[in-house]
Amino acid sequence: MRLSLLPLLVIAGPALAQPQSQVESIYTGDVAVSVQEVATGLDTPWGMAFLPDGRMLVTELPGTLVIVSPDDAVSEPVDGTPEVFAQGQGGLMDVALDPDFAENQRVYLSFAEAGDDGVAGTALGRGRLVENRIEDWEVIFRQEPKVEGPNHFGNRIVFDGEGHLFLALGERFKFQPAQDPSNTLGAIVRLNRDGTVPDDNPFAGRADAAAAIWSYGHRNIEAAAVHPDTGGLWIAEMGPLGGDELNRIEAGANYGWPVVSWGINYNGVDIPDPTAFPEFADAVHVWSPVRSPSGMIVYTGDLFSDWQGDILFGGLSAGGVERVELDGDTVTATEFLPLNTRIRDVEQGPDGAIYLLTNVKGEEPGAVWRMEPLEMQPPEADGDRTGPGE
Amino acid sequence: MRLSLLPLLVIAGPALAQPQSQVESIYTGDVAVSVQEVATGLDTPWGMAFLPDGRMLVTELPGTLVIVSPDDAVSEPVDGTPEVFAQGQGGLMDVALDPDFAENQRVYLSFAEAGDDGVAGTALGRGRLVENRIEDWEVIFRQEPKVEGPNHFGNRIVFDGEGHLFLALGERFKFQPAQDPSNTLGAIVRLNRDGTVPDDNPFAGRADAAAAIWSYGHRNIEAAAVHPDTGGLWIAEMGPLGGDELNRIEAGANYGWPVVSWGINYNGVDIPDPTAFPEFADAVHVWSPVRSPSGMIVYTGDLFSDWQGDILFGGLSAGGVERVELDGDTVTATEFLPLNTRIRDVEQGPDGAIYLLTNVKGEEPGAVWRMEPLEMQPPEADGDRTGPGE
Repeated sequence: MRLSLLPLLVIAGPALAQPQSQVESIYTGDVAVSVQEVATGLDTPWGMAFLPDGRMLVTELPGTLVIVSPDDAVSEPVDGTPEVFAQGQGGLMDVALDPDFAENQRVYLSFAEAGDDGVAGTALGRGRLVENRIEDWEVIFRQEPKVEGPNHFGNRIVFDGEGHLFLALGERFKFQPAQDPSNTLGAIVRLNRDGTVPDDNPFAGRADAAAAIWSYGHRNIEAAAVHPDTGGLWIAEMGPLGGDELNRIEAGANYGWPVVSWGINYNGVDIPDPTAFPEFADAVHVWSPVRSPSGMIVYTGDLFSDWQGDILFGGLSAGGVERVELDGDTVTATEFLPLNTRIRDVEQGPDGAIYLLTNVKGEEPGAVWRMEPLEMQPPEADGDRTGPGE
Repeated sequence: MRLSLLPLLVIAGPALAQPQSQVESIYTGDVAVSVQEVATGLDTPWGMAFLPDGRMLVTELPGTLVIVSPDDAVSEPVDGTPEVFAQGQGGLMDVALDPDFAENQRVYLSFAEAGDDGVAGTALGRGRLVENRIEDWEVIFRQEPKVEGPNHFGNRIVFDGEGHLFLALGERFKFQPAQDPSNTLGAIVRLNRDGTVPDDNPFAGRADAAAAIWSYGHRNIEAAAVHPDTGGLWIAEMGPLGGDELNRIEAGANYGWPVVSWGINYNGVDIPDPTAFPEFADAVHVWSPVRSPSGMIVYTGDLFSDWQGDILFGGLSAGGVERVELDGDTVTATEFLPLNTRIRDVEQGPDGAIYLLTNVKGEEPGAVWRMEPLEMQPPEADGDRTGPGE
């Protein structure tokens, strides 16, 4: 572990030294932050992971994986990535490094995979990153059944620090299957790193349930992280109209979609809330209006020392970053950092800065942004009043 | 008055019948709203005012005034508008109808006006709208002194229901002049409708102050409204980095900029807050992170009955609409409706719907949006789950 971390520390300097044009500054009343563009020209970037040398692997939804350097250099597409179902919300999605990447060079990619006759489902594969290509690619999990439609592929890949990985999925916008543990729509699955199913999964050995399932009754999950202090799995999932949820995931639990929700349907039809349904695990926190969570970290760096142990997740529809303070598994405060831009993924850099992937609708290229504290200073003589901001 | 209102009621039907493409739906946990595009193709729209026939006068910052019909028809530029200083935040800005428009056809326009040698200042004029032209145009107020720079022209035009108008201004990004009542930078001025100064203005007859001033010590005001229940003037003004303020304006009061602020400077230099400065009027409410308020109404319609008497203002940097509930002059609740788009102006339509002007950075055309309640219905059978929204 010490060995694999060493390279990170070595490049922290260079990574810190590369802010490009300033995008935004924010003052929350407690802390001031500055957001700069690190790289741009990306085509709908979706997932990001830091390599030990400080470069970033970034997926582009249409199906390419690129390597972004802190100095704004974007590589040619990495060879050997899987063919993807690039429709609607589907394509090449999350990317994660094996916890033992320094030894095995393994990279995990999640993606929408086409089946026969136009159906599709989320899949997970892995391979070894050798220079600019993926070798020994293998698909290690497929969400079943594959169904029609371009929506709610989820997803995020998270490692639990105990040799397993979680893949948090969506219900493919099919609703009822999320309540049926015999399929993996609207579920979080827990796998060994080779894709086999751990014997201690909650439904292992049950004839009426998919052994890979860790939890179910989810709508669409694109934000997940394991808290380093507790080992607990946290996810934020998209409600329908209203009712985005922060959930602390318990093994075998049913999170209630589509039977219950704190939101309503897009057509105004109400949905019962979980209050009268003890059989469903309720959310720890709910956001209405929604954030549309995508990408999550638990911050552990020194750069934002007040944020250590906080959950940060990106917001698509809300256009910014939500910060959630925890006391154990209880939410004690939340704060939204508006960036007026759809945020698709959030990662902590080796320099302790917070890196964001933008997800702009329309023609504007996607970018990597870097958030760092803005050094606060005592008042100066009157007249020093910078910034004409509207 | 009854006569001048009659046309509004007549066209309420047609105006309601014209929603274009749906932009967004929002559920707050209490109310669901739907936002549709009414008109687009506008060039940086800045201010809007409803004509008695249900059409909208809309200013475009580069210097044109157009008439927008609810059926998405945008007129040729209205003739007879003033030449403007179209740089940075300056141009043709707010538009307002005379309270007696039905009798006098008077339209008021505020704008950035060039002086000699590149200086500029905010000015206010009025004329009569005859078909598609402004006749008898006259400038009735000029912010003095004109200074260099393209920032902080304010502004909004508001009538007080007692024969006067307020023009809420900015300090032209010059800071200290906001503390000097001998000029009108960073001030709100109160004028008779012909531009003369009312005898009962707080500084009338004082040698060391501009008689037009109603209040001063402001930074940049682009959101203002008079509350119909109390007659009180409310404004929201932009803080520096953090510290946007909602202020209840008292005659002759000094609101403290740039000596005090709840925000800090863009460069991280702190500014004292007003706590230890009783000589300054403090804000009623403060937003950090900022909203960048632009455009304000006090809602009085039936369509959003729960919002009657609430302040609504647009947010540029935050990208949405802020709703503020009041008990008298006390804020009892606030709620942000995220639209992920810079909102430049907010008006209540004759149909009770809430009309918004977008202000998109970059090439995307500006639009008029219409917000109406989304009719909520009881739960239906499972399976009716519309909306794949991310």
